[in-house]
Amino acid sequence: MTDDWFTEPGSSGFEHRYKVRAISFKKETAFQRIEIVDTLEFGRMLVLNGAVQTSEKDEFIYHEMLVHVPLLSHTKPRRILIIGGGDGGALRRVLEHPVEDIVLVELDEEVVKACRKFLPSINGDAFLDKRVKIIFDDGAKFVGNSREKFDVLIVDSTDPIGPAKALFTEGFYRAAHNILSKNGICVTQSGSPTFQMEELRNVYNGLKQVFPTVRVYLAFVPTYPGVLWSFTIASKKWDPAAVPPEKVKERLISSNISTRYYTPEIHTACFILPKFIQGILEEDTSFETAL
Amino acid sequence: MTDDWFTEPGSSGFEHRYKVRAISFKKETAFQRIEIVDTLEFGRMLVLNGAVQTSEKDEFIYHEMLVHVPLLSHTKPRRILIIGGGDGGALRRVLEHPVEDIVLVELDEEVVKACRKFLPSINGDAFLDKRVKIIFDDGAKFVGNSREKFDVLIVDSTDPIGPAKALFTEGFYRAAHNILSKNGICVTQSGSPTFQMEELRNVYNGLKQVFPTVRVYLAFVPTYPGVLWSFTIASKKWDPAAVPPEKVKERLISSNISTRYYTPEIHTACFILPKFIQGILEEDTSFETAL
Repeated sequence: MTDDWFTEPGSSGFEHRYKVRAISFKKETAFQRIEIVDTLEFGRMLVLNGAVQTSEKDEFIYHEMLVHVPLLSHTKPRRILIIGGGDGGALRRVLEHPVEDIVLVELDEEVVKACRKFLPSINGDAFLDKRVKIIFDDGAKFVGNSREKFDVLIVDSTDPIGPAKALFTEGFYRAAHNILSKNGICVTQSGSPTFQMEELRNVYNGLKQVFPTVRVYLAFVPTYPGVLWSFTIASKKWDPAAVPPEKVKERLISSNISTRYYTPEIHTACFILPKFIQGILEEDTSFETAL
Repeated sequence: MTDDWFTEPGSSGFEHRYKVRAISFKKETAFQRIEIVDTLEFGRMLVLNGAVQTSEKDEFIYHEMLVHVPLLSHTKPRRILIIGGGDGGALRRVLEHPVEDIVLVELDEEVVKACRKFLPSINGDAFLDKRVKIIFDDGAKFVGNSREKFDVLIVDSTDPIGPAKALFTEGFYRAAHNILSKNGICVTQSGSPTFQMEELRNVYNGLKQVFPTVRVYLAFVPTYPGVLWSFTIASKKWDPAAVPPEKVKERLISSNISTRYYTPEIHTACFILPKFIQGILEEDTSFETAL
């Protein structure tokens, strides 16, 4: 924090800077430093260990794309597991679907407390819904030990440094495969293709060791460094990139889901990758210097 | 410029910051302040009046999308007019196609001189090609007065403040229509949907007053504020969004064009807009607060 600006580095040579109106909340917990930073451009932002997690103004992009893509790639998602997601934004979108049970496993209870208090525009009444069970625990441990089965697993975590590291390992992906029902789908945020090329490649290749179908899709999230953001989705049966737009449209209408970023056509288009990002996945190192 | 960082604002509350290795060049011309800033993350950047125009590392994204989309939307583009584009990056991509003549009208000769000297990785041998004619003049005036006809007009300008303002008026779009041959196509960069919503809407609506088919397409350009960037394309005959990917593929192969961002599938997908951007175009003001 310098002057009245909050700075987040994308790399050692590139930063995003946000004009700050106020620091609404700040706490060191057993796991991390939590801040709620109120910015001029994006409203209140949840910041964990200096990294922006979500903002009032653009949260809809990340959360719609994290949730609607996997849920609408599954024909009947009933039981959903969210790892992380303590801000409640993903939870709120999952609840828009006709699901039966949702388990949310968040490491740090203080994140949920702070977000319920300072970011109600993001989580709404999501934490009060009777279909929701909140567990404060280590997500990797929960997935490794649970005997329950889920149709969709959403990994809504910080980047693979610190507490979230275990969520980006092949061991975790095997446990994720195990906890998913027969036609289950798993999605995870997989970082910036611009600044975290290795992270994206590792997630993609790690999931490919375990799942028959793995796809990368993209969205632009203005408050994430580099803005272009990747998600990696792994599926036991259906190809998420092959869902017909008409099917998506039917489901959105029948569930009365309204969106501000996601559309049936975006569901298809988000899987179309620029050539240098295909190159990252295929480990074509001639692209390494592209960005 | 503070310390060793170059800062470009996206809005009053949001900035991109680049670690600077050196200022390679700086000159006040009759038209603007030209800088070539050598950055750690993106290599040398052309900066006009404080706004990043292009960088060595990511120029391929903007230039491929600015050039290949219109040229491959036209079945036989022979005569091309570029307004602006003094860095030569668009020119270089146009020359990859089997075109006959290219006229490039750049306001400021000093931009071309600086870019030929400091950014040869961007313009290559483009300025030496015999098919190219360079004119140093006001682009709007040239388009208004010329009696030549062109198949594709590419407006590769700064944003609509200062010298480029005339390129974003309905009068210019009428002159552009007039200078284009029967099946002509015109493309222009139209700003950041995140931070320049009004600019995008004005370009789209202005072109719609004049051309039967107008489409907006998107690319992500890491060094432009907000990263997500819009282009608006106007066509007398063909719908650029309806070009079959197989046709694009054939043309890329027959012209031996290799790309790092653009692909036949990207040509289709780049026209699929997130819902709130459709809202911007349709002047649905409920989206104004979305971002």
